[in-house]
Amino acid sequence: MKKYKGYLIDLDGTMYKGTEKIEAASDFVKALAEKQIPYLFVTNNSSRTPEQVAEKLTEFDIPTTKDHIFTTSQATANFISGKKSNASVYVIGEEGIRDSIVEKGLQINDMNPEFVVIGIDREITYEKLSIACLAVRQGATFISTNGDIAIPTERGLLPGNGALTSVITVSTGVQPIFIGKPESIIMEQALKVVGTSLEDTLMVGDNYDTDIMAGMNTGLDTLLVHTGVTTVEMLQSIERKPTYTVGSLEEWIEKM
Amino acid sequence: MKKYKGYLIDLDGTMYKGTEKIEAASDFVKALAEKQIPYLFVTNNSSRTPEQVAEKLTEFDIPTTKDHIFTTSQATANFISGKKSNASVYVIGEEGIRDSIVEKGLQINDMNPEFVVIGIDREITYEKLSIACLAVRQGATFISTNGDIAIPTERGLLPGNGALTSVITVSTGVQPIFIGKPESIIMEQALKVVGTSLEDTLMVGDNYDTDIMAGMNTGLDTLLVHTGVTTVEMLQSIERKPTYTVGSLEEWIEKM
Repeated sequence: MKKYKGYLIDLDGTMYKGTEKIEAASDFVKALAEKQIPYLFVTNNSSRTPEQVAEKLTEFDIPTTKDHIFTTSQATANFISGKKSNASVYVIGEEGIRDSIVEKGLQINDMNPEFVVIGIDREITYEKLSIACLAVRQGATFISTNGDIAIPTERGLLPGNGALTSVITVSTGVQPIFIGKPESIIMEQALKVVGTSLEDTLMVGDNYDTDIMAGMNTGLDTLLVHTGVTTVEMLQSIERKPTYTVGSLEEWIEKM
Repeated sequence: MKKYKGYLIDLDGTMYKGTEKIEAASDFVKALAEKQIPYLFVTNNSSRTPEQVAEKLTEFDIPTTKDHIFTTSQATANFISGKKSNASVYVIGEEGIRDSIVEKGLQINDMNPEFVVIGIDREITYEKLSIACLAVRQGATFISTNGDIAIPTERGLLPGNGALTSVITVSTGVQPIFIGKPESIIMEQALKVVGTSLEDTLMVGDNYDTDIMAGMNTGLDTLLVHTGVTTVEMLQSIERKPTYTVGSLEEWIEKM
């Protein structure tokens, strides 16, 4: 069995389920820490800051600092800054994406912005969507933090950022650049942050369509854990399998 | 030249342009009134009541009572009531659609509704979209007043109801039943209201993709007027032409 020198790890469904603990997750990450194997949590959640995400993991007894977190908001800010430093950006979204944009030295602006970014925004308004549509029609580059269609909550599946994004896509006819999983944009950046090579890094997650596809799209080996979205039955009908599959991350610890 | 016994007529781009008068429109409708030819204005606007629409036309010197107006909100309420009288309906939308739903004796309800209806709502919120998504996932019939992707305003093209509708479509994977033009649902109802037969009724409008397609989808003869969306150049590349085309409705008066 190949020994991986770095791990990229999904959060919801892999490290916890909503507000619920996944027992093996804590031991899994502690084993990585003990063996001094670098790991980075890669999340499509654009609403929280890395500090807030780290705090939640710590509560689940998973050894985490903010430097172990890589959000699609950080990836989005990096992506824009790579296209143009100091760019002006119109932002729809919550604290996580706003913080990342500002920290990267980009200018938040609703008048003739060069970029329009949308992340999940539970205070979405018609005016915000209007400003975004007008800017995209005027040529602003249209970016979406992620295409997730739904967010699991205790009430059921609520609209995800991919669903909100479609207002602008449908109205303007312009397709966004998606940054988050399953796109390789977030993964290639995460790989640089974790600091290991493509061949020596494993992508770990519970969702075939986002986590595993993200790994595959980037050329990484993948480990699917059946504690979240993708069940054993669902995987049967999928042709291109993950590199490895486990029922619980507990099973993987001895293979590290 | 065939003489039509009834007219279905579009509003924006045909009778006026936003807040601007279209000169020939008033004479055209006055000629219909003089000849006692029944006419009905058919609109995808779900936000206004028939009274409010009639008032606007009267200001443009177009002879109109509220009974000359048929909105997609009225068609939507009729459609639901035809499926189930007293049905419970969760409504996203403005005054026009809410009024029509209530007038038809349907129950507005956000708990386990049998139908979810979305019309343009410039006070859209994440909570409204969430309630709609949850209800559609629980099996409520999903209806959209119209699929218009954009609304022309003095600021530019703002998101239309078709764009807002896509949040629910994308998030739930359920396609709505669209009621407004170019669908035949609104047209078949309008035909009953105007009271003339399919063969003897003409659909008049400026927009090939909505008005003319609505006529064609219903089996009506169509008259395209080049005072709005569809230009002479645009029409050249379209294979299936309207029955008649004029530059101004003035040209049609002698043919009534």
